[in-house]
Amino acid sequence: MGISVDLNSDMGEGFGSWSMGDDAALLQIVTSANVACGFHAGDADAMATTMSLAVNNGVGIGAHPGFDDLRGFGRFRMEVPHKTLANQIKYQVGAAEAMARAAGGSVRHLKLHGALANMASTDANLARTCYEAALEVAPAIIIMGLAATAMEEVARQLGCRWAGEIFADRAYNADGTLVDRRLPGAMIHDAGEAAKRMVAMVKAGAILTADGGELTTRIDTICVHGDSAEAVEIARSVRAGLESAGITVRAFSGDPL
Amino acid sequence: MGISVDLNSDMGEGFGSWSMGDDAALLQIVTSANVACGFHAGDADAMATTMSLAVNNGVGIGAHPGFDDLRGFGRFRMEVPHKTLANQIKYQVGAAEAMARAAGGSVRHLKLHGALANMASTDANLARTCYEAALEVAPAIIIMGLAATAMEEVARQLGCRWAGEIFADRAYNADGTLVDRRLPGAMIHDAGEAAKRMVAMVKAGAILTADGGELTTRIDTICVHGDSAEAVEIARSVRAGLESAGITVRAFSGDPL
Amino acid sequence: MGISVDLNSDMGEGFGSWSMGDDAALLQIVTSANVACGFHAGDADAMATTMSLAVNNGVGIGAHPGFDDLRGFGRFRMEVPHKTLANQIKYQVGAAEAMARAAGGSVRHLKLHGALANMASTDANLARTCYEAALEVAPAIIIMGLAATAMEEVARQLGCRWAGEIFADRAYNADGTLVDRRLPGAMIHDAGEAAKRMVAMVKAGAILTADGGELTTRIDTICVHGDSAEAVEIARSVRAGLESAGITVRAFSGDPL
Amino acid sequence: MGISVDLNSDMGEGFGSWSMGDDAALLQIVTSANVACGFHAGDADAMATTMSLAVNNGVGIGAHPGFDDLRGFGRFRMEVPHKTLANQIKYQVGAAEAMARAAGGSVRHLKLHGALANMASTDANLARTCYEAALEVAPAIIIMGLAATAMEEVARQLGCRWAGEIFADRAYNADGTLVDRRLPGAMIHDAGEAAKRMVAMVKAGAILTADGGELTTRIDTICVHGDSAEAVEIARSVRAGLESAGITVRAFSGDPL
Repeated sequence: MGISVDLNSDMGEGFGSWSMGDDAALLQIVTSANVACGFHAGDADAMATTMSLAVNNGVGIGAHPGFDDLRGFGRFRMEVPHKTLANQIKYQVGAAEAMARAAGGSVRHLKLHGALANMASTDANLARTCYEAALEVAPAIIIMGLAATAMEEVARQLGCRWAGEIFADRAYNADGTLVDRRLPGAMIHDAGEAAKRMVAMVKAGAILTADGGELTTRIDTICVHGDSAEAVEIARSVRAGLESAGITVRAFSGDPL
Repeated sequence: MGISVDLNSDMGEGFGSWSMGDDAALLQIVTSANVACGFHAGDADAMATTMSLAVNNGVGIGAHPGFDDLRGFGRFRMEVPHKTLANQIKYQVGAAEAMARAAGGSVRHLKLHGALANMASTDANLARTCYEAALEVAPAIIIMGLAATAMEEVARQLGCRWAGEIFADRAYNADGTLVDRRLPGAMIHDAGEAAKRMVAMVKAGAILTADGGELTTRIDTICVHGDSAEAVEIARSVRAGLESAGITVRAFSGDPL
Repeated sequence: MGISVDLNSDMGEGFGSWSMGDDAALLQIVTSANVACGFHAGDADAMATTMSLAVNNGVGIGAHPGFDDLRGFGRFRMEVPHKTLANQIKYQVGAAEAMARAAGGSVRHLKLHGALANMASTDANLARTCYEAALEVAPAIIIMGLAATAMEEVARQLGCRWAGEIFADRAYNADGTLVDRRLPGAMIHDAGEAAKRMVAMVKAGAILTADGGELTTRIDTICVHGDSAEAVEIARSVRAGLESAGITVRAFSGDPL
Repeated sequence: MGISVDLNSDMGEGFGSWSMGDDAALLQIVTSANVACGFHAGDADAMATTMSLAVNNGVGIGAHPGFDDLRGFGRFRMEVPHKTLANQIKYQVGAAEAMARAAGGSVRHLKLHGALANMASTDANLARTCYEAALEVAPAIIIMGLAATAMEEVARQLGCRWAGEIFADRAYNADGTLVDRRLPGAMIHDAGEAAKRMVAMVKAGAILTADGGELTTRIDTICVHGDSAEAVEIARSVRAGLESAGITVRAFSGDPL
C-alpha cells in the first residue's frame, strides 16, 4: 500500500447573482470541497448546487465557515468575541449539514476561511474556540487545518480527527508560516513547479521551507485553487504530478494525530 | 384524560445589539418556542440564549424561518423563487438543529414567520414548497400552521406531523382568515376576553368566527405574543383561563391529520 | 441640427470580491451610466471605480437605486411601505451624490432598478413615491424611465426633467409593455437587428410594437446591457448603426415632457 | 461673554423593527446629534425620524459613520483596507447629507463610531484616512473627535474645522486615554459626580486625569449617552450642572485648532 494524499479546494463562493470560481472543473480534480456557509460567501442556493455536484463527483464535503462579512469576503480581520464566534461556527456547521443531507451527502470536515483561518493559525485560543464549537455539534467532524501550526497543536490536544494541509502555490518560511505574498517567490505560478514541490513534500512527510529546511508534519491534504484558469491548471498539474509519482489521490482518513 | 392544548410564541427575535420581547417571561408561560433563525431576526447568539432558556424551562423548540430580510423583519411580502425559498428553509432548519443540539435540545417543530406565513396560509403551492423543504432535511419535524387554512390542507396531503394553531388575540372571518387589523374588533386587547375565547374554541374544537359561526378544525396550539407588557399579560391570562377550565396546557403530540 | 439619442447601461454592479459586467468596455460605448447604489449591488468601492471611469469617459452618471436586497439583486418583487421606500431612495441618491463628487462628477439622472422599476412602470403611485423622493433631495435630477408607461405619465404630472427610455434587445407588446421573456421573439439576440430596430424607433419617435403598431412617445435614451460578450457586441452595433443612420449619440437634454 | 460647551450624543441607532435609546428625550438635552448612517446601525427610516426631531429641537446634525457590520454594531475591530474605508465614509456622509436635507437641515459635523473611533484615536493614519474622506465630499464639515488624541493631532495638521470631545461618564488615564471599563472607577455612574467633573474640566480647559493631572486641550463638546434611564439622567444632570456653573450649553463653533 503506497502513499496517498487528498486534494482540497474552497468552493461554493458565489452569492445571489454573483458567481466565483469554476466549481464544476475543480470537482473533477479534487477529493475534498470546502463549501462556504453563507456568512462570507455562499448562499443556500450556492451550497445546494455545489454540494450536489460534489456528491455526484464523489468529493467529500466540508463546512467552510468564515467571519460574518459578505463585503470583505471574510478576508478582513475582525475581533469577534469568542462566544459569538463559537455560536456562528455552530450555526454555519448546522446549515451545512442540512444542505449536505438534502444533496444526498454529509459534512465530513471543517476548514476555517480567510482571515479567521489566518488568525487561528497563530492563535491557539482562537483555533480551540472554533474547533470545540464545531465538535460540539458534530463530534465526528474532521478538522482540516494548516499543518505544523497552532491549528495542528490544538487538534492534537483535543484528540479530534485531523487533516493537515499544505498549499500547492505558496512558499514557506522556516517556521512553517507562509511567505508574505508581497515578497518575491512567495507565490508559485508555474504548474509544473507546483506539482514537483507537492510530490517532494508528500514523499518527505514534511514542509520544505524556502531556506532549504524541512518541517516534519503529517500531510493529509493539499490545497489548490480554482479562482482563475491558471489556478485550475495548477490543480490539474498537481494531481497529475502526484499520480505520476505513484502517490494516490484520495480522501484523507482523518485519523487523530 | 381531559382536553389539552399547547401555547406557542415567537421568540429569539433580537439581532446583534438589539433585543426584542421578553423571552424569559414567555418561557415560563408557553410550551412551544418558535425561534427566529437568522434571516429576518435572531442571530447565532440569540438562538443559543433562547434555546438554552427553552431547554431549561422544558419548552419545545421550533425553527421559525422567514424571508431573508433583516430590514423588514420578514414582514415585507417578497416574490422569492420557490427553489431558492426551499433552500433557505433547509438552511435555516439546519442552523436551528445545530443550535438546539448545542443547547441540549432538539428542533421539534417548524413554523413559518411573518409575510412568508401570511402568504403560505392562502397559497398551497408556497406552503408545500416550504413544508417539503423542511421535511426533506428533518422528516420527523412537526409542521405548525394556521388551522383551517391552505397550510392545514397541505399538511393533510403530505401526511406529515401537524400542529394546528389559533391566535389568542385576533378575531376570525367566516372563512377562517384573520379579520384585518385595521377593522374594529380585529384585535383582542382584553386579557380576560382572550382567555374566555380560547377556552371556548378549544372546547368546541372549532374556530369561533366574528359572525357567530364555527369552523371545525383540530386545534393543537394557541399563539400568544410577548412583544409588550400587555401581550405577556394576555399570555398569562390565557394560560390561567385554560387551566381553570380544566384544560391541560402541554406540548402537542404532532399527530398527522 | 439632426436627431440625437443617448445610450445608457446599468453598471457598477459588483459587490465586495464579486464583479459583474464589463464597465470599462461599456463606458466607451454609452453616454449614460446607471450606477448601483449599494442596496441591491454596488458597494462604495464599486461606485468609486465606476464613477471615476465614467467621468474619464465623459459619460453621465445616474443613481440606480433598487430594493434593499443583495441576495435577490433587487430582482425579487417586495412590498415595501412607501414611506420606507422613499427614505431608501433619498439615502441612495445622497450616497451616489457624494461618491460622484469624490470622482469629480455629479449625479445627473435617476433610474430605478430591477423589480422596483418593473413595479413602478405599471404602478403610478409607486413611481410617484420614488420620483418625489429623489426630487426632494435633488430637484434638478433627470428622471429616466420607460417611455410610454406609468413612469412617463408621473413625470409629466410632476413636471420634472425626464429621459424616456426604450430597450435595444426587447420586443414590445401593443400597450408598450415588454413581451414576456419566455415567449419566442421576446429577446433580440442579433446585433444587426437590434441596431436596425433602434434606428427605426428613434427616427419614428415611436415604439414599434410586435404587432406592427406604433406608440408615439419621446425617446431620449436606449438601454443596452454589458453582462455578456454578446450584450457588449449589441451595444457596439447599436451605436454604430445609429451613427451610420446620421443619428448623433449624445447625452439627453432632460427637458420636461 | 462667558464659557460655553456643546453636548453631543449618539442616536438614530435603531434598525428596521429594532429600536435603541430614547432619542426624543436626549434631543431635549443635547445640542449635537451624532446620527448612525446605516452601516453599523440606523437605516434610512431611523435617519429620517431622528434628523427631523433634531431639526425641530434645533439640534445640530452629525454623520456618525462606522464599520459595515450590523451584527457587531460597529463595535468589533476590523482591518478594512484604507481605500475601502475612505469610500465607505464618503458614502455614509453623502447618505446623511441627503437625509438631513430632506429633514430640513444639513450635516454639520462628523464623528466616527465605535471600534473605528477607538482605533482612530490611537492611529493617526487611520484618522487621517477617515477625515480626509469626509472632507473630500464635505469640505466645511466639522470633525468631532476625542480631545488630546491622535484625532486632534490629525485635525490640527489638516487645518480642518474641529470639535474636541470629552466623556461625561468615563475616567481618564494620564495620557488622555480612557480608563479600561473593567477597572474600578472607570465609569462614572453618579449623575452629580459626572456634572461636577464636567464643570471642572470645561472651566480648566483640560482633561482631569485619574492620577490628579491636567491635560490642557480644547474642549468643545461633552459626550453623553441615552441608552438607559440612568444615562439620560446623567445627561440631564450634566446640562443642569453646567448651566448652574454659568457655562452656556450651545453648539460648538467648529473653529480650526
